[in-house]
Amino acid sequence: MSAANPAVVIHAARDLRIEEREIHAPEAGQVLIEMQAGGICGSDLHYYNHGGFGTIKVREPMVLGHEVAGKVAALGAGVEDLKVGDLVAVSPSRPCQNCEYCQNGQQNHCLNMRFYGSAMPFPHIQGAFQKMLVANANQCAPAHGLTAGQAAMGEPLAVCLHALKQAGDLMGKTVLVTGCGPIGCLSILAARRAGAGRIIATDLSDFTLNKALECGADLALNTAENPKALSAFQRDKGQIDVHLECSGAAAALATGVTCLRPQGTLVQLGLGGDMTVPMQAMTAKEITLKGSFRFHSEFATAIQMMQLGLINVDPLITHSFDVSEALNAFDMAADRSRAMKVQLTFAS
Amino acid sequence: MSAANPAVVIHAARDLRIEEREIHAPEAGQVLIEMQAGGICGSDLHYYNHGGFGTIKVREPMVLGHEVAGKVAALGAGVEDLKVGDLVAVSPSRPCQNCEYCQNGQQNHCLNMRFYGSAMPFPHIQGAFQKMLVANANQCAPAHGLTAGQAAMGEPLAVCLHALKQAGDLMGKTVLVTGCGPIGCLSILAARRAGAGRIIATDLSDFTLNKALECGADLALNTAENPKALSAFQRDKGQIDVHLECSGAAAALATGVTCLRPQGTLVQLGLGGDMTVPMQAMTAKEITLKGSFRFHSEFATAIQMMQLGLINVDPLITHSFDVSEALNAFDMAADRSRAMKVQLTFAS
Amino acid sequence: MSAANPAVVIHAARDLRIEEREIHAPEAGQVLIEMQAGGICGSDLHYYNHGGFGTIKVREPMVLGHEVAGKVAALGAGVEDLKVGDLVAVSPSRPCQNCEYCQNGQQNHCLNMRFYGSAMPFPHIQGAFQKMLVANANQCAPAHGLTAGQAAMGEPLAVCLHALKQAGDLMGKTVLVTGCGPIGCLSILAARRAGAGRIIATDLSDFTLNKALECGADLALNTAENPKALSAFQRDKGQIDVHLECSGAAAALATGVTCLRPQGTLVQLGLGGDMTVPMQAMTAKEITLKGSFRFHSEFATAIQMMQLGLINVDPLITHSFDVSEALNAFDMAADRSRAMKVQLTFAS
Amino acid sequence: MSAANPAVVIHAARDLRIEEREIHAPEAGQVLIEMQAGGICGSDLHYYNHGGFGTIKVREPMVLGHEVAGKVAALGAGVEDLKVGDLVAVSPSRPCQNCEYCQNGQQNHCLNMRFYGSAMPFPHIQGAFQKMLVANANQCAPAHGLTAGQAAMGEPLAVCLHALKQAGDLMGKTVLVTGCGPIGCLSILAARRAGAGRIIATDLSDFTLNKALECGADLALNTAENPKALSAFQRDKGQIDVHLECSGAAAALATGVTCLRPQGTLVQLGLGGDMTVPMQAMTAKEITLKGSFRFHSEFATAIQMMQLGLINVDPLITHSFDVSEALNAFDMAADRSRAMKVQLTFAS
Repeated sequence: MSAANPAVVIHAARDLRIEEREIHAPEAGQVLIEMQAGGICGSDLHYYNHGGFGTIKVREPMVLGHEVAGKVAALGAGVEDLKVGDLVAVSPSRPCQNCEYCQNGQQNHCLNMRFYGSAMPFPHIQGAFQKMLVANANQCAPAHGLTAGQAAMGEPLAVCLHALKQAGDLMGKTVLVTGCGPIGCLSILAARRAGAGRIIATDLSDFTLNKALECGADLALNTAENPKALSAFQRDKGQIDVHLECSGAAAALATGVTCLRPQGTLVQLGLGGDMTVPMQAMTAKEITLKGSFRFHSEFATAIQMMQLGLINVDPLITHSFDVSEALNAFDMAADRSRAMKVQLTFAS
Repeated sequence: MSAANPAVVIHAARDLRIEEREIHAPEAGQVLIEMQAGGICGSDLHYYNHGGFGTIKVREPMVLGHEVAGKVAALGAGVEDLKVGDLVAVSPSRPCQNCEYCQNGQQNHCLNMRFYGSAMPFPHIQGAFQKMLVANANQCAPAHGLTAGQAAMGEPLAVCLHALKQAGDLMGKTVLVTGCGPIGCLSILAARRAGAGRIIATDLSDFTLNKALECGADLALNTAENPKALSAFQRDKGQIDVHLECSGAAAALATGVTCLRPQGTLVQLGLGGDMTVPMQAMTAKEITLKGSFRFHSEFATAIQMMQLGLINVDPLITHSFDVSEALNAFDMAADRSRAMKVQLTFAS
Repeated sequence: MSAANPAVVIHAARDLRIEEREIHAPEAGQVLIEMQAGGICGSDLHYYNHGGFGTIKVREPMVLGHEVAGKVAALGAGVEDLKVGDLVAVSPSRPCQNCEYCQNGQQNHCLNMRFYGSAMPFPHIQGAFQKMLVANANQCAPAHGLTAGQAAMGEPLAVCLHALKQAGDLMGKTVLVTGCGPIGCLSILAARRAGAGRIIATDLSDFTLNKALECGADLALNTAENPKALSAFQRDKGQIDVHLECSGAAAALATGVTCLRPQGTLVQLGLGGDMTVPMQAMTAKEITLKGSFRFHSEFATAIQMMQLGLINVDPLITHSFDVSEALNAFDMAADRSRAMKVQLTFAS
Repeated sequence: MSAANPAVVIHAARDLRIEEREIHAPEAGQVLIEMQAGGICGSDLHYYNHGGFGTIKVREPMVLGHEVAGKVAALGAGVEDLKVGDLVAVSPSRPCQNCEYCQNGQQNHCLNMRFYGSAMPFPHIQGAFQKMLVANANQCAPAHGLTAGQAAMGEPLAVCLHALKQAGDLMGKTVLVTGCGPIGCLSILAARRAGAGRIIATDLSDFTLNKALECGADLALNTAENPKALSAFQRDKGQIDVHLECSGAAAALATGVTCLRPQGTLVQLGLGGDMTVPMQAMTAKEITLKGSFRFHSEFATAIQMMQLGLINVDPLITHSFDVSEALNAFDMAADRSRAMKVQLTFAS
């Protein structure tokens, strides 16, 4: 184990640096993790390209990254459930467990959330793209039997499992997934696992649509080539039971509303901006539109489903770069014609 | 009982006429109703003022009206549960009971719905503002113990009871009602009945806000006078548990989203057009937005709740006009500074 | 096609006869089915062995059978969605579509249900173990792509899909299935399909437990050999999330309660008699106990899931007998050390 | 304020003593409460009469009591939301907030619960019938506007509000309440508040039945005088939508099952022992039977509903005794022909 701690730090839009950070010792209840894999998320790309989200801007250097897995390198006092050498997936979600939302089982809405790699409070919440990370033991889900790359997929998979809970019973249902990046494709894997009947996927890229098919979609439609590709599902009052909207595009949401059956459910996972929504149809068809945001107990479930061999994320891990090549990795991650999930490794 | 059958007929925008219609005899399973009260709904006003909704236009003369109650005047063959002289509320909802939605208990989405006074199919569905109406016996809810005016409130009350089902458990919850016309005020009565804790009402008119208070609202805020009236409910991530949106105004919906707690519920009752929705907040707060449209079993429930003395609609029936004065009645109904529910009578 | 119509008729306990029945022509909205496969259900066995259930006794000769599939042989007037030669699964459930339960989407509780092969009303409802059956077109689910034997499994699979709806979200959950006859094994197939994490199966027979493993159970425990086999799941307040009770045995239900986590769900599928239930634990742990009875829309879903290749019932069809060998078939079906689902064929 | 701290201590069956206990100073996050009212619960009576529940026996002297309210007498460090003199209702529920159930919003199933006056762990959890009680600030719900006696009713009312959540939507529903002691009567108040249509109450005592009527029941039936009193509700498949079983008697549960409609809900609040349940009817009617145990967030809701004037518990507080008369109070509380809720006061 090297004593160095290279970290991937965003300073401003398009100013991403590999910097050495101090290595801390784990305190009571904590562990030191030697990182092995870290997936680049769309929000990491947003920080990279825009230095933030909308009005939220990076105001100080911030380590990026929140989809990570590594090996336990040292134990703080009182940690008994883990041992040195264990492969663990590290949840980036650190709710306070004290506020009214935490006490109500709604930890993803914690008033004092400290989610890795977020510029929302100041000082910012430093992220997990660093070789030697100190984490709380209760953030760590043991991931024996998985590769580090698979374990690092636990976080985005948890996002999708949480969204599926909003969607309700899927057995035999016809499901539309719009947007087939990693979140869309993981939603397809999860919907297929949850008993969905037919799964229809749309995107603007043939590369991602082929991945969607590989993940179990029955039909993949390129709406860039054919904007009316979904018209067959607009018969009568609609033919889709559940719409998982993963693109954040207003057009996808609006088209979904026309394809949904009365009393169908639309789960919005993508964080787009304000959108014009066809409220007349929403109301007359009694569509249920649910936002889905992050996760809580689903993190452990995601790891478990992969360990049991019930969800296989391998088709989605398309690229791996050493942390020293992080800039190339971010550029690759932005290319939807070639890349799905791009992960960093920290072996060097 | 007079043999005449005056009916309120829309021909085009602002062309409303009182015309004599033929009286039919009830067939098997049907009853002849001598109408006693008919409430003017916002959609009736829309036909009156605009000749239709959006792209749907009246293409032939159509009797208006769908909030009605009267006395049974004659029985068709095989009708056993009713007798001549019974006061009944007549449901305007006539689902086919055969399509997939009817067979699934989703009758308000019937593919072949014949709802009174609707220009959506052609020939149009004739409405119930006529003195001698033939209805199916199973449309009739016995309303003994109520006045005809109260019984005619069963229909809009059913709309609100259906919306409350979408809202889920209200016990002790803080409820926001935006738009305090008849639907908003009936929603307040129903929410109060269903165990709501605090009820906050907003509107642009002091007249309707006073009615809201009379119906049980704890706080009535005029957002025309003070657009920031709801700012106290925007603390932290929001203080409202459930938002019943009865105005159809995009601003009300958007403000509600900022006032709702994470995982709060917003029920959209008002049929507005397309709206810009703050989807970023909707998603990050995991708001559930549900459209609510018409009703089915709630019609009988509405009548029953009034009969049991558990919901009192009297404060909302502000005006009554003989059918011969229908034009005055429609003009009055449009005046939110003086009128709440305006009803027609058919005694003459 | 032979003009003969051999039928399997129960006269009294242990008095089962193969008799010739008259062939009827299909009326409007009906079809004539040439039967190809009919599965023997536990309730058929009950009629065979006991002449009825509890106080309900066969009072006149009754054709048995309600798990059937065949080919359309003739069409009544007005039938457009089917054509001669189509393989169809025939739902034995014939709700009236008029009573309050049918109108409420609760057709499995129809007040006037005419379910095939039931001695509950008198005259009895004749069943479907006959070569030439007249059925309503809307009972028939097209089953192209399936074998007749698979299609005839649609009925018991529908029972299990209905039960799974009662169980709620299964993703990653630990599921206990007690009783691994056809209903238990189909429940395992369905739970696996619905995203269950670990599935534990118990029975008294190694033959059925091996089938349970073949259907996807992770652990199969013989509670005849080891009555304490489930003790590992009784740690703390319990380790099981969902219990699907398919045995109808009071001991299985009681053990399940001790294994369930607080707020866990127990779905009772098996129709046992009155049972002593550990209500103190049920209450203190806030267990939800739900009865599950028959199905409605799940019949079409069951066929569809098999057609999509998402549920494979083949391991469960262990024996097939020509209708002329029906007595042997019934005896085999009663032998849980050798037989799972035994089906009749009607080729001769 | 007197420095004495008289406490009501159970030593063994029928051995209840008033003893002086040491007064502790509040630590950080705690408050000292000068008790004003304490209601005697059925479980307190059980300890008094039997020295425990079933196999659980008092093994050391234990202060009883868990329905209490008093005035803040002193503040520990860091307590900011309360001030000396505030009337507060004190929740007896002290979950650990760390175990998997607490983290999941299921605090009433905390693995390390320290509920006042419980002999389940050893050393026992001392109760709240003492004049000077140290409690955590977050156990205290401010109760300004209420009397101490009303505030002390917050705990049993919370039990009933929690049970009502299990029952689901009550609007217009027909509700059966069996057992009309304090829990039954509070359930009636809560069901009436939650929109129930007709409420039918049964008990063996005319005194409690009259209280049930006073709480809003529409019909009160003495099943001791007329065991067939509920037969009118057994028509067809049953006429009751929701059964709140508050008696813990097997006969009440069984009768309820015969009165419930298909897919009706039965909530078991009373902690009886094992019971014989008509499982055949439960299954065929698809009854949902839910245990309900204690409460969590409903404690604050209960206080709030009383403060808002939406639930009035006054008819149920029938007797009040000074703590020095505790034995008389316990004897009175056991007399269902005269007493409903008996409370202790601590003024002397």
